[in-house]
Parts: sequence; structure tokens; C-alpha cells
Amino acid sequence: MSQRDLSPEEFRELGHAYVDWIADYRARVGELPVLPGVEPGWVRERLPAELPEEGEPLTEVLADMDRVVVPASTHWQHPGFFAYFPANASLASLLGDMLSTGLGSQGMLWSTSPAATELEQHLLDQLAGATGLPAEFTFAGGGGGVIQDSASSSSLVALLAALHRASGGAWRTAGRDGREVLYVSAHTHSSLEKAAIAAGLGADAVRIVAAASGGQAMSADALAAAVREDVAAGRRPVMVCATIGTTGTGAVDPVREIAAVCAEHGVWLHVDAAWAGAAAFCPEHRGLFDGAGLADSYSTDGHKWLLTAFDCNLFWTRDTATLIDALTVLPEYLRNAASESGAVVDYRDWHLPLGRRFRALKLWTVLRRFGLAGIRAHVRRHVELAAELESWAAADARFAAGVPRSLALVCLYVVTGRGTDADNAATKAVLERINAGGRSYVTHTVVGGRYLLRVAVGGLETEERHVRALWDDLCAAADAVTDAVTDAVTDTSGGTAATGTGEEAPAVPG
Amino acid sequence: MSQRDLSPEEFRELGHAYVDWIADYRARVGELPVLPGVEPGWVRERLPAELPEEGEPLTEVLADMDRVVVPASTHWQHPGFFAYFPANASLASLLGDMLSTGLGSQGMLWSTSPAATELEQHLLDQLAGATGLPAEFTFAGGGGGVIQDSASSSSLVALLAALHRASGGAWRTAGRDGREVLYVSAHTHSSLEKAAIAAGLGADAVRIVAAASGGQAMSADALAAAVREDVAAGRRPVMVCATIGTTGTGAVDPVREIAAVCAEHGVWLHVDAAWAGAAAFCPEHRGLFDGAGLADSYSTDGHKWLLTAFDCNLFWTRDTATLIDALTVLPEYLRNAASESGAVVDYRDWHLPLGRRFRALKLWTVLRRFGLAGIRAHVRRHVELAAELESWAAADARFAAGVPRSLALVCLYVVTGRGTDADNAATKAVLERINAGGRSYVTHTVVGGRYLLRVAVGGLETEERHVRALWDDLCAAADAVTDAVTDAVTDTSGGTAATGTGEEAPAVPG
Repeated sequence: MSQRDLSPEEFRELGHAYVDWIADYRARVGELPVLPGVEPGWVRERLPAELPEEGEPLTEVLADMDRVVVPASTHWQHPGFFAYFPANASLASLLGDMLSTGLGSQGMLWSTSPAATELEQHLLDQLAGATGLPAEFTFAGGGGGVIQDSASSSSLVALLAALHRASGGAWRTAGRDGREVLYVSAHTHSSLEKAAIAAGLGADAVRIVAAASGGQAMSADALAAAVREDVAAGRRPVMVCATIGTTGTGAVDPVREIAAVCAEHGVWLHVDAAWAGAAAFCPEHRGLFDGAGLADSYSTDGHKWLLTAFDCNLFWTRDTATLIDALTVLPEYLRNAASESGAVVDYRDWHLPLGRRFRALKLWTVLRRFGLAGIRAHVRRHVELAAELESWAAADARFAAGVPRSLALVCLYVVTGRGTDADNAATKAVLERINAGGRSYVTHTVVGGRYLLRVAVGGLETEERHVRALWDDLCAAADAVTDAVTDAVTDTSGGTAATGTGEEAPAVPG
Repeated sequence: MSQRDLSPEEFRELGHAYVDWIADYRARVGELPVLPGVEPGWVRERLPAELPEEGEPLTEVLADMDRVVVPASTHWQHPGFFAYFPANASLASLLGDMLSTGLGSQGMLWSTSPAATELEQHLLDQLAGATGLPAEFTFAGGGGGVIQDSASSSSLVALLAALHRASGGAWRTAGRDGREVLYVSAHTHSSLEKAAIAAGLGADAVRIVAAASGGQAMSADALAAAVREDVAAGRRPVMVCATIGTTGTGAVDPVREIAAVCAEHGVWLHVDAAWAGAAAFCPEHRGLFDGAGLADSYSTDGHKWLLTAFDCNLFWTRDTATLIDALTVLPEYLRNAASESGAVVDYRDWHLPLGRRFRALKLWTVLRRFGLAGIRAHVRRHVELAAELESWAAADARFAAGVPRSLALVCLYVVTGRGTDADNAATKAVLERINAGGRSYVTHTVVGGRYLLRVAVGGLETEERHVRALWDDLCAAADAVTDAVTDAVTDTSGGTAATGTGEEAPAVPG
């Protein structure tokens, strides 16, 4: 007898067991090594070669979670996760996410789920207000917001709208004409280059604007010069992407000045605040967002620092007409009276996929669990912890800050006193030791030839003791690496094991 | 005191309550009207104007689900849902989905979650085998599969890979050159046109190949002629999208013949089997997929007929090198030893978003709950129910089949005996009555000027009694509409209320 779907009663029983498994996992995740020590192929070797012919009890999946999945997982919800940016998947958001699958609705059109569409509109309007975006970004003000899957997709969608506007719509039929230019900085997220490639512009159409001296922020003067040069050469400036909180170091582009350049030349301004956007809930950080309200589109991730499980990117535009004109296609089977009335929003025209999940529910449970005060407290706690780490490093000769702290992101390197190459090798070796140690996970970036260890504080359950543990491990690793470097100097066999890969051995002082 | 995230213990208690709510909803969804009777704005009027400053108990969200969300939802999991295509969100898949958010991992790189990457690779390899795709589509065979969010995204990704190959990679830097052509049929999914626009080709680059006479399937001869013509004119045929189970009517393009044309001219063949792909589990339907193994890429939706909650599109390609070369970008902060070893798959290079959810888990719980036998039984049950409906309609003078049944999709129209315009108006009026009735939901398409009511059988809990109820309603509606048409003939006031919008009034026999 072949299986059918779970009955509601079977689901009730199993659902409780799955909830319990998740509760237990979250309760113990801090005791697990953050990074799994598995080799490629470890997981597949433990899975059966064939799909089952007959159904199995789903309790067995939980056993396999413990046997195969957890031991081979990088634990993003671990309180010692300081890598990349946080990807907060709060348990509050999990509840809303469950409801989304429970309903199983498709929100491509208003008519295919009015609740999904209107709750999303409503929350995006409210969030615009709560983060200081002007009314022009709300539906009430003629703009509006939408949940995309990722900041990458938001960047691409913004570029498509920009292409549409810049070409007077001709792009939709004739395609790109070869004159378009997209402006970024060297620290803009790589998804902008990917968007330019995907949109048929090619990477050559991406102009990398110089940074203002001494930093990683885009120079508005350099941008203005580049735009003028391109216009004079017959090229067509289409879009500028300004970033509030770059991925590498958390740098903040001068959005207001950039907006002035864009306004002068009619260029679409997209502001990417994927990570830092959560800070806009706090008045004391609002200054970082100066000028964001002048953008044509603005994006931040609900699924980074804003507590909501992936995927939940928030995208707003003041120019919904252009966005919709750029992306709409209307086959017969999607025609319906509500859409034709013009009284509703059909979100299928706001992004590339047609189908769409009821993602507003997980955002709703987050906003109601935390309240605005809770979100602000969450952000502030992390900024304070990062400031503590910064102060410890500043007071310690073994470390230096590679760039100024940005909100809850601290970038450090090891000071060997033997030059940049040696610092880089030591810093890389320290990173490898930290990540092999199991208590913390950090990643890196490179700025101006300097290898920097990035510490992005932002875990839901990250407390001072976790930051302190990381600091202790950093200090111990720095000492060990320095010892290893010293050993290497005296050991003529040339052992460079401390650097892990051996390809960037510490420079021997000459 | 501002709120933090739920503790594991709070989550345990609330999680059980949310599971119970979902179980109760699924148990009663068949008693709700499929379509909500709400006007635009109904939802927003019932939501508070401001976000809460302080957190609230999340039990209140469940109350609001009953108060606001459910009454304004189109119930896609209702057994009387016959609209569009089914979007099966099985309760089995919900369990896996919960685990995904519970882990909260990001699978962009192998190293950021080995389990997420390898389980996905493993299941896609197994599913290739279970659905008759050749070994070249598996990782073991040099190809591989990935979960995308939607068939729309798969189409776009296929097009980007095709552009990359056709241009010898030049497209990545220089952009599209204006000579590219994409081939579809009039019945290809609208996402292909959207992909062409997004990729900067423009809609003019989309060539609509004629159908073979008397049907909706693409003519391979017409395709061959079009390709030859384009090549002769200096254009560059980039990709053909062949469809197995078109959205409108379930038509099946002659994939093997199309593949021969593609092979002759080195054109990328993408096969879109978004809906029908689930039938490939059944040997008796495998013939519909003849030639699919010759494609460069192939896609089907786990989230349509294949029981898995949105989003879960399955995409395979034999040419992973081209796909990855087309889409990869490598900023410093994503560099890692595992990727550089070449021994792992980094799925970020397989699609446009960078971040990615552990979607394989929900597919895993589906495959283990149902087993292959359960999936085949699920598909067969719907095909049988659709065949029953087809037989009832064939034996009833009030209805005719607009096109032959395709698997579980039946397209019908009302026969008025007064010509196509009258049939169209009557069919539209019948559709509106069905959808206003609350027991069933159907949508429509138009083929060759004929308005057709589409009945897509495929709900998880759809039984013969639900199809019978739809049939009874169809018959009653046809009678009522025919009466209304007759009344309209004798009523010189010209009332056309039965058609709903009034814009396509039934033609009065002349």
C-alpha cells in the first residue's frame, strides 16, 4: 500500500516531534563545533544509494538529522558564528514560516492570495516608516515594497528597472544597446557584477569608481567625473549602486552626494544596505542612512541582521510604474478581473520568479515577537559587543584594526612587526586556528593588500562570553603563530606548517 | 523590557500550538470556500496601522490567522482547487521545511553547509535516475542538478548558460551582441519572454515557432526552417525551449526532433517540464519525455505536482562547466580552501541569488514519506480522475474538449450551438459561477480564439467526490448560463449580468 500525505493527525504528532527536535538542537547548538570537520563526500557516503520504493516513517529523518546532517553542518545559529554576516533565523520567524507552508498559498497575483499580498504591502509600508524611508517608498505614497529572495535578486531587479527607464522602455523589445554603464565601487557586493552579466551588459559595462582617499567608500567626485566622461563619450549611465555597509568591511558610501550626481544625470540610484539596514531602526545609527531616501530603490535583508529566516530580502522603490513596466508579462492564463481593475498589486511583476511564497508571515511573527524596541535592543547589543572587542584589540599590541569598526563588524589583523606579508600570513594562520578550534567561526577579506580577519557580531544568542571566548582564542592563536614564525626563523628545514596551506609562508625578516 | 528571540522552551510550547493550528486548518480546508470573497483593501483595513513598539505574545498571531488571513486566502491546498497547476505543499514537506529553518544554514558554498550541498546533490542524482534522465545529468556522470526557486529562474539560468556557450564566453565581459535568438512556441511559458527581457536580449529576440498543424506543440520543421533562416541572416541561435506539458493546455513539444535541430546547429536545448515532470516517475507516461535526455538542461517543479512546498524547482544540466563559468563571481570574502580544492560543488554558482536555503530537506521528507511507489500512485490517481472528468464531458452535449486531455489537465468549453463567441461567453460565465460558488476553483486559457476552462486535477486531498462536485457545478452552471443566454435573447433590455464583466456578452444568435 503506497503512502499518501500525512493526515492532519499524523502531522500533529510528527510536527510536535519535529518542533521538539528543533528546540533541542537550538538549545545545544552552542556546544557543537561551529564548523564540521568533514571531508568532501562524507555526507553522500552515509546516504542510501537508492530512493526508497515504499514510504518510511518520518521519525527516521530525525535520526538521520543527528547521524548525518548535524555532524556535517556549519552551524549558522551558533553563538560563536562571526563569519560572513549573521543569518538570523529566529525561532519566532520559524513559527511564521511554518504557517506559510501550512497555508501553501501562491502569492503571484493578488487574486491568488489577497492576504499574502496585502500583509506584505502593509508590513513593507510600516517598515519603511520604522527605518526612516520617506513616504514615497510606501504604497500610500505612490511607491512600495516587496519581499525578494535575496539582495542579489534585488540588485538585478533594480538594474532591470534602471535599464527600462534609461532606454525609455526600448530595452524591453530591442534589448540592451551596448552603451549602458553601471557604477559601483571596488567594495560593492559581487552580485552587482553578476547582475550586469545576467542582464546582458557584460562585466565591461561595470565601471568601478574609485574610493575616497583613505577609505573604502565610493568617492562622489570620482563618480561625477566618470559619469561626465561616459556621457561625453556617448555612453549611457544607467545605474549607480551605493552601499551602506559593504560586505568586506562595512564601509558606507556617501549616499546623499551620490544621489546628487544621479539626479543631475537622471541615473537610477540603488542603495544596497543588505546587512546594515537593520541599524536604521536605531535613531543613533540613522546618520549612516543619510540620503537613502533619495534613492530610486533601496534594499535590506530581513534574513541577515533582521532576525528573519532566509529568504527575506526587503526591496523598496519609489518608481513602481517603471519596475512593473520593466518586468510584466501577461499570458492569458494569468488574466483576472482583480488585476484588470487596477486596484490591486500583483507581486509577480515585482521580481523574476512567477510563483511566490507567503514570506510576509515570518516577518510578521518576528515584528510581533520583538517589537520595534526588541529589534533596536538586538542591534544595540551586537554593536556594543563589537565595540568591546574593538577596544580589547586596540589595547593589545598583537592586533590592529584594519579599518574602523562599522556597527557590529570588526576587521583585525595580527601585528608581527615584520611587515605586511608577515602580518598577512600570521592573520591567515590565526583564522585557520580559530576555525579549527570549534568555538568560533570567522571569515576574512583583503583590503589594500592586507588580509583582514572579519568578526561580524550578530548571532541571536551571541553574548559577551562568546565574544570573550573568541578574543581569548585570538590571543592564544596569535601567540602560537608568532612562536611558529619564530621557530621558522630558527628552523632551517623551512617548516611553515603554522600557515596551514604553506602557500603564503610568513616572510622571514631579512 | 524588550523581547529576545523565543527560548527553545518557549518555542517548544508555541511550536506545538502552531503545528496544531496547521493540522486543524488542513483538516477543515475542504469546508472553506476555495476563493475568498474579499475586496481589495479588506486585509489592510484589519491590520493595525503601526508596528508594535513592544513585543506581543505569538499566540495572537494565530488569532489573527483566523480573523484576517484565512478569510482572505485563496486556499491552494483545498481539494476543490483545480486552477493553474497544483502547488502541492504536502504536510510531509512541511516537516522538512521546518528543519531547514531550524538549522538556519546558508548553503551558498559547500563549506558553509556541507550537508546542505551534498544532500541536494544526492537527491538530484537519485531523482534523475528515478525519472529517466540519463547519467550525464548526474554528478557521477559529469553533469548535475540543483534546486532553484522556480521554473522561471531555471529558464533564465539556462538562457544565461546558453548565451555563454554560444558566445564562447565573450558575453560575460562584452554583453550580448544583438544577434542572439531564442526559440519558443506560442504556448511556451511566459517566463521565457521574461528571461529574454531580463537577459538584455529584448522580446524581439524571441522567435515564436509555429505549432505543428492542429495542435499546440512546436513544429520541429518550422523550428529547423527558422534556425536556418536566422543563421543565413547572420543571427545567432542561442537556445530553444521545448515544453513537456505547456501551461495553457499541457501540450508536449516533440523534444527528440527538436533536439536533432539543436544538435545540428549547436543550440542549447532547455526542456521545461515544470508541471508534467512528476509524470516521469510512471513508466506508462515516460513516452511523453522522449528525447528529454538529449537536452542541455531540464527542469521540473518539485512544488507543483511533486508534493513539495514552494519553492523547489529541480534543474539539471549536462554542461555544468558552462553553467558555472557563466554565473561565477568570486569576491575575496567567499574564497575558501574547500572551493579551491576543486573537490566540492558550490551551489552559489548555479543560480542568481548568493544565499540559499537548505531546500533539500523538504524534498527529502517527501521522498521518504511517499516513496517512489507513493509518488506514482499520487500521479496516477490524478490522471485517472481527470480521465473520468473527460469521459463525463465527452458524453455530455453541453461540453466539449477544447484540446485532448494531457495527463491530469482537462480543458473544456461550453457548447451553446451558437458559434464560438457564444461558446466563449458561456464558458466564461460558467467559470465565474464555479469560482463564485466556493466549492471549486478553475482558471482559463484561450486557444485559437476559444476560451477554455482548465481543470488541473492534482490536489493532495482531491478525491473523486471533489471532481464529481465540480462536474455537478459545471453542469448546473452551464444550464443556468444557457437559460441566461436564452433570457438575454428575449430580454430587450440587454442584460448581460451572467457574464460578470459585461465586456464579452454572449453573442445573440442572429
